[in-house]
Amino acid sequence: MMEVGPFRVNKDKRTLSENMHAWTKVANVIFLESPVGVGFSYSNKTLDFHLSGDKSTADDTFVFLLNWLERFPEYKGRPFYISGESYGGHYVPQLAATILSHNLENSSTRTSINLQGILVGNPYLDANMNAKGEVDYLWSHGMISDEAWASITKKCSLDQRGYKACVTDMHGADQSNIDPYDIYASVCLEGPIETQYPSRYTPRSYDICSDRYVYVYLNDPRVQKALHARPTEWTHCTSEIAWMDAPASMVPTLKWLIEQHLPVWLYSGDFDSVCPFIATRYTIKDLGLNVTEPWRPWIVNERDEVGGHVQGYTGGLVFATVRAAGHAVPSHQPEAALVLMHRKRLSSKGSSGLDGAVAVPTP
Amino acid sequence: MMEVGPFRVNKDKRTLSENMHAWTKVANVIFLESPVGVGFSYSNKTLDFHLSGDKSTADDTFVFLLNWLERFPEYKGRPFYISGESYGGHYVPQLAATILSHNLENSSTRTSINLQGILVGNPYLDANMNAKGEVDYLWSHGMISDEAWASITKKCSLDQRGYKACVTDMHGADQSNIDPYDIYASVCLEGPIETQYPSRYTPRSYDICSDRYVYVYLNDPRVQKALHARPTEWTHCTSEIAWMDAPASMVPTLKWLIEQHLPVWLYSGDFDSVCPFIATRYTIKDLGLNVTEPWRPWIVNERDEVGGHVQGYTGGLVFATVRAAGHAVPSHQPEAALVLMHRKRLSSKGSSGLDGAVAVPTP
Repeated sequence: MMEVGPFRVNKDKRTLSENMHAWTKVANVIFLESPVGVGFSYSNKTLDFHLSGDKSTADDTFVFLLNWLERFPEYKGRPFYISGESYGGHYVPQLAATILSHNLENSSTRTSINLQGILVGNPYLDANMNAKGEVDYLWSHGMISDEAWASITKKCSLDQRGYKACVTDMHGADQSNIDPYDIYASVCLEGPIETQYPSRYTPRSYDICSDRYVYVYLNDPRVQKALHARPTEWTHCTSEIAWMDAPASMVPTLKWLIEQHLPVWLYSGDFDSVCPFIATRYTIKDLGLNVTEPWRPWIVNERDEVGGHVQGYTGGLVFATVRAAGHAVPSHQPEAALVLMHRKRLSSKGSSGLDGAVAVPTP
Repeated sequence: MMEVGPFRVNKDKRTLSENMHAWTKVANVIFLESPVGVGFSYSNKTLDFHLSGDKSTADDTFVFLLNWLERFPEYKGRPFYISGESYGGHYVPQLAATILSHNLENSSTRTSINLQGILVGNPYLDANMNAKGEVDYLWSHGMISDEAWASITKKCSLDQRGYKACVTDMHGADQSNIDPYDIYASVCLEGPIETQYPSRYTPRSYDICSDRYVYVYLNDPRVQKALHARPTEWTHCTSEIAWMDAPASMVPTLKWLIEQHLPVWLYSGDFDSVCPFIATRYTIKDLGLNVTEPWRPWIVNERDEVGGHVQGYTGGLVFATVRAAGHAVPSHQPEAALVLMHRKRLSSKGSSGLDGAVAVPTP
């Protein structure tokens, strides 16, 4: 409801309006609230919440998809894509790897999930590279000084744990009215009535308070009933979950997926300092691929506006930036995000690329 | 008329409107079109245009100021500041050095130009550091690839000439509908009727076509007559001038000014890739000063909006960034630019800092 879905929640928190740039306009989309314990996804076994992790999330989602296709067999064999964002940098490649592994093990079920590619926005892929990219991003965008950059880089070049401590220091020093997920966005004023902070910087259509409208709307008992959801306190994140496993780096998984010839699309809003595009570059460098299509601007619309830049690599990896977009690209730049998604489909008419996208966004 | 002045030219190119954030609201300002040959500044000797350069510009401006103060002696002894932008990174320190040198030579004229500080926006200070800063800025803002950055940096780390060739290459590769002076600005459509390119990125009040309105307005014979200007083809830049001298670096001049205890304020719109704030950081590093006030956000208004970041150095140097502003800061962020200018005056009420600013913008 904030990103790629067909509806947006209005300021009144009770009514909806159409998202002109919904991804449902170009693909059938399954929205899955994952892992179990967030959103409307639940388990009857308390243990499930205490044994959550990357692996159980991938396994659960895989079982969900198999069951879903059994229930709607007309979708079996359709080209299928997985999409996510942020920590989706873990969820999406791992689910893809789970699907491909099962396809390899049992080739007779191969067509049951006809995975054709993955698409992840502002992905969290590698703890070290993300921290390094964050420091470099903050420096190159004027958020930290030369001295802070040098100190953090010197102190923190050793291991993940070191980095974490330093990044915490860094954040402590730089708290101000800047949203780390979109460093030029307006700020949502807290209070009984949410008001959007008028920003001189990027007064775009994106309403920074929209996550609050969604929260209120989805907790309306009438809405929960209409959705056939179990009555619950809907929340997109929860501290109730204990996390058992999370690899420090997704590089091995991504390498394996590329070896399996799975097209991988990574895209990054370039105003995000949390999972910055610079970090994604570093991780891509670690993949050791060659450039097949050099860095070039890509165009959003008939006014020839530059939507960002894009580069192609051996094995089908594509990396694209989305200009002036924060962490949640389809919130900040819905038109550009849809074009990016759609262009992939267009590009397939003749050359390589993805086709008939079915996206499964993860939170 | 585009930056700090009291009026803006309207779209009709014939009428004016008030600039609510004019620097004339907080200081008396002399606007000098410099060097001779640009704007309404002229010479009766053709030779002057063939012997132009940094030195003659400083000398001419110094003579102009002396004569001006003789004509308006009530301003003698007033606190005086010099301001400029871009290549003003050469003009302003050199004029300041000329004034201080004359003051030292003849202490009796010391009060005739009571220089209290200089203020330069997005300054061009050092050819090598500017080129290095530009490459790093373009990379960290997603305009060039890892590969282009590595290649340019490798090829071009030697001397100024090398850098220039590489930067030319780089520009050749990256031409697109992005304004290098404000990489998130809209684009002005060329044509018989100028229309502002609608941009999704930063639809602020700044009209990217405004330089054309100014051009037409100042070439209106009635306007030229009303200004008591000699009829001319007004232009803010000209290729008629041969440039005889320009030091590769202003670091020695800046060092000398700081030794003379002259307050130096440098500020940078952080959306500018031409004289990027990263380049100014590199040049400041070459000055070898210590930090006295660590990097911190500065606040524009009662809504606590962050206007940018600021850092203080030994000797009185201050460096401030202006958030989401391009090369011409007062055009892109007039409120923030005025606050920055005004805050300096406020800061003097009690501590150090500048007071009673008189700015002389150079083109």
